[in-house]
Amino acid sequence: MLIHNSYFNGDVQSIGFERNGRRQTAGVIAKGEFHFGTDAPERMTIVSGELWVRLPGAEMRAFPAGTAFEVAAKSGFDVKAEAPVAYLCEFL
Amino acid sequence: MLIHNSYFNGDVQSIGFERNGRRQTAGVIAKGEFHFGTDAPERMTIVSGELWVRLPGAEMRAFPAGTAFEVAAKSGFDVKAEAPVAYLCEFL
Repeated sequence: MLIHNSYFNGDVQSIGFERNGRRQTAGVIAKGEFHFGTDAPERMTIVSGELWVRLPGAEMRAFPAGTAFEVAAKSGFDVKAEAPVAYLCEFL
Repeated sequence: MLIHNSYFNGDVQSIGFERNGRRQTAGVIAKGEFHFGTDAPERMTIVSGELWVRLPGAEMRAFPAGTAFEVAAKSGFDVKAEAPVAYLCEFL
């Protein structure tokens, strides 16, 4: 079953699914700045566009389409999109 | 602005957006078989999983994550997903 998620007044939306017992979401981040907290560890892969990301303890840097980053559990990260960005989030 | 689309009783869902004047959707296809008609020409890129696709006049074949196919305007294609598949659709 697919689940539609909407955050930040609809500025971040995703479709959640499960395959081989692993949860993933395919989503889009609208232009803007947002903070995401993590419960489980996750891998974010940029599918279209470019996302600026500040990982814990690091400077903000750009992740263009085709690149990915991982975030630990019980952590978080800041993002900035200058135009809409599509991503795949895999819960690890 | 992001737009949530739902088709086939929620078995295909996507988030639509526009960047640089080009429309795209990031979506998920649940397990099942579906037919899509095209209005504009489009490029489908498989982001996660594997999608079986029958393009016009061709046999059904598998497109695994990382591969893509294009479909002409005013056409259509059949797909079969044996498990949920995430995709990026770019309207050309």
